[in-house]
Amino acid sequence: MKIAIAQLNPIIGDLPGNTAKILQVAQQASDAGARLLLTPELSLCGYPPRDLLLNPSFIEAMSMTLLQIAQDIPMNLAVLVGTVEPNTKAHVNGGKSLFNSIALVDEGRVKQIFHKRLLPTYDVFDERRYFEPGLQANYFTLDNINIGVTICEDLWNDEEYWGKRSYAINPIADLANLGVDFIINLSASPYSVSKQKSREAMLRYSATRYKQPIIYANQVGGNDDLLFDGNSFALSRKGEIVCRALGFDADLTYVEFDTKQHDLLPSSVIPMCESEDEEIWRALVLGVRDYAEKCRFSKAVLGLSGGIDSALVAAIATAALGKENVLGILMPSPYSSDHSISDALGLGENLGIKTQVIPIGELMQGFDTALVSLFAGTEFGLAEENIQSRIRGNLLMAVANKFGYLLLSTGNKSEMAVGYCTLYGDMNGGLAVIADVPKTRVYSLCHWLNSNSEIIPNNILVKAPSAELKPGQLDQDSLPPYEILDDILERLIHDHQSAAQIVTAGHEVATVNRVIQMVARAEFKRRQAPPGLKITDRAFGTGWRMPIASNWLAVKNAYQA
Amino acid sequence: MKIAIAQLNPIIGDLPGNTAKILQVAQQASDAGARLLLTPELSLCGYPPRDLLLNPSFIEAMSMTLLQIAQDIPMNLAVLVGTVEPNTKAHVNGGKSLFNSIALVDEGRVKQIFHKRLLPTYDVFDERRYFEPGLQANYFTLDNINIGVTICEDLWNDEEYWGKRSYAINPIADLANLGVDFIINLSASPYSVSKQKSREAMLRYSATRYKQPIIYANQVGGNDDLLFDGNSFALSRKGEIVCRALGFDADLTYVEFDTKQHDLLPSSVIPMCESEDEEIWRALVLGVRDYAEKCRFSKAVLGLSGGIDSALVAAIATAALGKENVLGILMPSPYSSDHSISDALGLGENLGIKTQVIPIGELMQGFDTALVSLFAGTEFGLAEENIQSRIRGNLLMAVANKFGYLLLSTGNKSEMAVGYCTLYGDMNGGLAVIADVPKTRVYSLCHWLNSNSEIIPNNILVKAPSAELKPGQLDQDSLPPYEILDDILERLIHDHQSAAQIVTAGHEVATVNRVIQMVARAEFKRRQAPPGLKITDRAFGTGWRMPIASNWLAVKNAYQA
Repeated sequence: MKIAIAQLNPIIGDLPGNTAKILQVAQQASDAGARLLLTPELSLCGYPPRDLLLNPSFIEAMSMTLLQIAQDIPMNLAVLVGTVEPNTKAHVNGGKSLFNSIALVDEGRVKQIFHKRLLPTYDVFDERRYFEPGLQANYFTLDNINIGVTICEDLWNDEEYWGKRSYAINPIADLANLGVDFIINLSASPYSVSKQKSREAMLRYSATRYKQPIIYANQVGGNDDLLFDGNSFALSRKGEIVCRALGFDADLTYVEFDTKQHDLLPSSVIPMCESEDEEIWRALVLGVRDYAEKCRFSKAVLGLSGGIDSALVAAIATAALGKENVLGILMPSPYSSDHSISDALGLGENLGIKTQVIPIGELMQGFDTALVSLFAGTEFGLAEENIQSRIRGNLLMAVANKFGYLLLSTGNKSEMAVGYCTLYGDMNGGLAVIADVPKTRVYSLCHWLNSNSEIIPNNILVKAPSAELKPGQLDQDSLPPYEILDDILERLIHDHQSAAQIVTAGHEVATVNRVIQMVARAEFKRRQAPPGLKITDRAFGTGWRMPIASNWLAVKNAYQA
Repeated sequence: MKIAIAQLNPIIGDLPGNTAKILQVAQQASDAGARLLLTPELSLCGYPPRDLLLNPSFIEAMSMTLLQIAQDIPMNLAVLVGTVEPNTKAHVNGGKSLFNSIALVDEGRVKQIFHKRLLPTYDVFDERRYFEPGLQANYFTLDNINIGVTICEDLWNDEEYWGKRSYAINPIADLANLGVDFIINLSASPYSVSKQKSREAMLRYSATRYKQPIIYANQVGGNDDLLFDGNSFALSRKGEIVCRALGFDADLTYVEFDTKQHDLLPSSVIPMCESEDEEIWRALVLGVRDYAEKCRFSKAVLGLSGGIDSALVAAIATAALGKENVLGILMPSPYSSDHSISDALGLGENLGIKTQVIPIGELMQGFDTALVSLFAGTEFGLAEENIQSRIRGNLLMAVANKFGYLLLSTGNKSEMAVGYCTLYGDMNGGLAVIADVPKTRVYSLCHWLNSNSEIIPNNILVKAPSAELKPGQLDQDSLPPYEILDDILERLIHDHQSAAQIVTAGHEVATVNRVIQMVARAEFKRRQAPPGLKITDRAFGTGWRMPIASNWLAVKNAYQA
């Protein structure tokens, strides 16, 4: 049996467009002789549909669209379509009104419906908000082959592999007990650094433990902050990779189940990315491209400060949208150094993008004049620094509004963590491209990018980082060195370590406490930040839900406990 | 048995401060001869603690704090404290690592722990993200009286009252079957308009259905966007209100359970608010006061446009913080009408707050000059309008940053819905005071406020709303009349109606489609909005989770299906 894996890139809520994509790959798969086509989790509406699911008319439209697909797919091809299904007994028995489901469409009709059993409700996932878990093992028989069906999280609960259970049941164990011939998993599994290695290691463990071939079909594409990397793959019953689709791009690939060998046969295996930097780069390029396309922007604008963050974002935007579609704006102030301007212009030349220079000195004077009586007798400080950043933010938004450009913000994760950024200033943008990239990783990405030729001017990589909002200012005057800051932040934010644990790891008490206070105090800024492309397991964004009006001193004490 | 109801106003995460509040009311209750003290759900950490719960050290600190409370409460007083409890079997059995719990503290130790059974996971509630549901009916015996324990949502599943089940079990039915003497409910139930009437009607139904006296202890106070109105109350077994605490303020009240009559005796019953306007007013005043206090601001600043929205917010801020702590900034442009300035100054005088005038004409010219070459050949439009709003936003933030003021934003829900507001301009602020108040309600609140004397100058109430960002501009040039807009928005956002249903209700197709498109397109603005005080069942904020990069045309079609 030839099985097609459609690694689709849906637009959330775009039922006609997503249907067209499914029907197109169905025709291709049928032409190629496939008997079964797999599409990702919720392929009809795209993942995650979020609160669109609360509209009854949206649910009705999905049902109608599914029936239409059933009529329109080629004969002799069975298709698994990700959709939602009403829980008709919810009012009587209690429970959520929907299931996260897979429809088996064959011979012109919907033959079976399978419900997701394990519903992730952590980090960016809110599935218990919408869905009731399915209670039964899911499988179907096609041409006398018994095929087990799982949906994403259903395969993420192998208590041996993880050393603990996250849910009471393990669907793959149930399916193995039932004696299916192989297991498919339809996923929408978001990207994070090295996630694909984890997926393959985990499913290799399950495949060998349960002696089950596994076919894993993942969504691809950027949906707001979430990036889906594709990398669909298949494992033989011995846990060998027999197939791997593209990373970070739509794909249609095939794998053959051989009934005599009772296993999947070796097929096309596309290599994984060679390095974490390459992986992150491709994820961010995909994220910018898809956010722009899905929001109907063709061009982007960003501020070029001459620093490394905006240089990296400019390079990503250029790769995503094309050099003719990126505009860099230099907005020097009297505090800007000469090299800021020359470095930014050099970057623009290297990338081949357009640049414009708008000096802001006179606007700064205008604000000084407007505020002269209110601010009389006060000293230059943070308020004045922020005014500069907000003048720039206003200019960038003016250009974006005037010409219909997407404004990209350029702040990195380290800054966002400690609040070393100006709300309504440099934080402005429709998308925060590197908001989940720590400063140390920004450097490593730029070095990787320059490995063949100098794209980011070398001076940008070697000079000391500065916001240049007052004379002689350096990041390191306000922050610990980035190697130290990033390690503390990783422990605090990603590993949930206490202050005591972080100190035990070798950091100074005063530094640790200062960083914790800065992180807690910056919550109000993060709440108003644009969506940031998620590349780690713990990003600021939809999966970060912290109170603002909390007692940070108590929080600090709690960290120290 | 005399039972004290402590209606507490905790600060999220402030374990020492919240503990002090609990111990203080415990002493008062003991002095008053109470045998049992009720505190709200999660009274130790405040509700909702959100992702603070993901820090193991925070959980440990809560456990240690609870043990300390057990030692410090007066003898002869049993106290129910809201806390979290580790689910020690989670790793083996699967499930979340915490319970949402109540600790019975008596005789110097923690005697019993009860786990919440129904975990709300909808709207602003994320309890399945953190908690595992308790599986057993909760009760304890004190002085030979059997007391049933429920936590908030546990009492919100009477299938007869609601006409449907939301959860498989109904904890009050279990407790009635066990034959407890009365039932307590420890809550953190957020405010929405007329919520208290719903609560009392629902629990009256349950009290009479199960012949159970019920004591309901609610949290009070503002925590970011969520407002808790208090209004703790008690019902006799016949469903009569025998006790009601203050609305919108901390309180300590008492109710007596009489073992002979086997019922609660009549006690102090504080009247509910007389009108929805009064209720909303008090909710918003509480929200501003608490957000400021809990974020350690004593003063607030806001822009006064001479319009009704900023007038209402100024009045709320004055009531919340005191007239000496509110600064109104007038920022007239060449497009501002004379009455804008005189109305705003008149408002300032009526409220007794300080005002400052900062004309922005020269700053507007400065931006025109800065952008002259880039914008050459283009016409005045939205970009230029937004520049003005962002100049004002920059000035307001400059004042806020310079003097440590909280900036209050003044946009209403109707504007936020359709995007009739400027991101990084008038949307700027730490708190969006009336972001959940539709424009028609803004008018009704102002009329209510003026019912005794003119606080909002009458001209502000009678003139046509205008953003005054270009000559002769009126809201109604861009938007349907607010009575129509607000009705469409209520149906769309609150009632999840489709376009077809809204049209059937009597609205024009073109208007409905235009509003739906505007709502979908404005999602990126709302994502970056400050927290807005929630007064309805469906607010933009933590309970509104919509994709940005979705196909609004498809969404529109879905609404129409």
